[in-house]
Amino acid sequence: MRLRNIPGAESALREYPTFVDNPVSFKGRWNERFGNNNPIHVEIGCGKGRFINTLAERHPDVNFIAVELKAEVVLRAVQRTEYREIPNLAFVQFNAAVLTDLFADQELSRLYLNFSDPWPKTRHAKRRLTYASFLQTYRQVLKSDGEIHMKTDNEKLFEFSLNQFALERFQMHNITFDLHQSKLAEDNVMTEYEQRFSSRGQRIYRVEAHCSFS
Amino acid sequence: MRLRNIPGAESALREYPTFVDNPVSFKGRWNERFGNNNPIHVEIGCGKGRFINTLAERHPDVNFIAVELKAEVVLRAVQRTEYREIPNLAFVQFNAAVLTDLFADQELSRLYLNFSDPWPKTRHAKRRLTYASFLQTYRQVLKSDGEIHMKTDNEKLFEFSLNQFALERFQMHNITFDLHQSKLAEDNVMTEYEQRFSSRGQRIYRVEAHCSFS
Repeated sequence: MRLRNIPGAESALREYPTFVDNPVSFKGRWNERFGNNNPIHVEIGCGKGRFINTLAERHPDVNFIAVELKAEVVLRAVQRTEYREIPNLAFVQFNAAVLTDLFADQELSRLYLNFSDPWPKTRHAKRRLTYASFLQTYRQVLKSDGEIHMKTDNEKLFEFSLNQFALERFQMHNITFDLHQSKLAEDNVMTEYEQRFSSRGQRIYRVEAHCSFS
Repeated sequence: MRLRNIPGAESALREYPTFVDNPVSFKGRWNERFGNNNPIHVEIGCGKGRFINTLAERHPDVNFIAVELKAEVVLRAVQRTEYREIPNLAFVQFNAAVLTDLFADQELSRLYLNFSDPWPKTRHAKRRLTYASFLQTYRQVLKSDGEIHMKTDNEKLFEFSLNQFALERFQMHNITFDLHQSKLAEDNVMTEYEQRFSSRGQRIYRVEAHCSFS
């Protein structure tokens, strides 16, 4: 998502109770931050925040953390919370490549990758959030029965991701080439990007990748 | 493939040296039929025979068996051999659903599924050649390092098949949504059907599914 650079975004973020200022201090003890032992689901890259806010409302028994690299993007997403305290939702400005600095081994139950940058050039393949090295990092912070839920409108990224999941021995479930026409559409929470693109007839691809074979 | 019923197809078949009349008698000893211990690769459904004939020419160190349900289709394919003896090629009229009557456990190294009937109706899903029960049969007759190579122009069948392979714990490799534009195009041997459809711009999907994780 392209956004203008918002001056003072980082200091503005600190005004929001759902924003976590020094997130590495919670590594290994995120459940203390949430005050319970509910499972933790993380969205990598939060866009404008519709997805994670909706999930947090629907599932009070799950703790949600949005991890987003750019302060300007986090600010947009966190503004959606309107300075409310939302007990099961936290926003973090952090680089997903070093997720192990943020979470202890097996601290998470689920990761969401929604409409990640496809990095279409072959020489940029390593930047794709489903590149093998990212998957290895995710596996480390996920529980042994953890899952990655990925959706994208980019067919090439989807094809690439299926191969990477297979290579890294994730067990895939519910592979779908047209989410909105599938049986999974009913429970699907759309991101802003997804609403815009699917309304133009763009198909959405989706897969669940489980860390272990069940 | 739709073909007119050819009267006397079954007796005509017996004129061809590459046709195997009583194939179940070779169960567990197909290498005796071929006179060597080379690996055995089987194509399920042979169409007009271009694929299996070309592979047999290119790979004299592999034994190829085409398994096809309909006598009329086998006849078309075997006619391509022009009454020649081809030491590493055999045609069989048989039902793939009972492949274990034809091959002993772990007798095969590879299976090819080319442009199988998509059986688009949900109530016919069990007839698709990548339905879980078929995959279980294939795993039984394949060696532990055996592979299934599947290609299709039918996206729905492909989506279905990826899910079935994942469910049955095959390790997938080289998943491609557009074979002829991929790095695998060079080694690809096209079937007659594939030549016709790809010349019209129809995309070909392909996946390799390995019995074990390597």
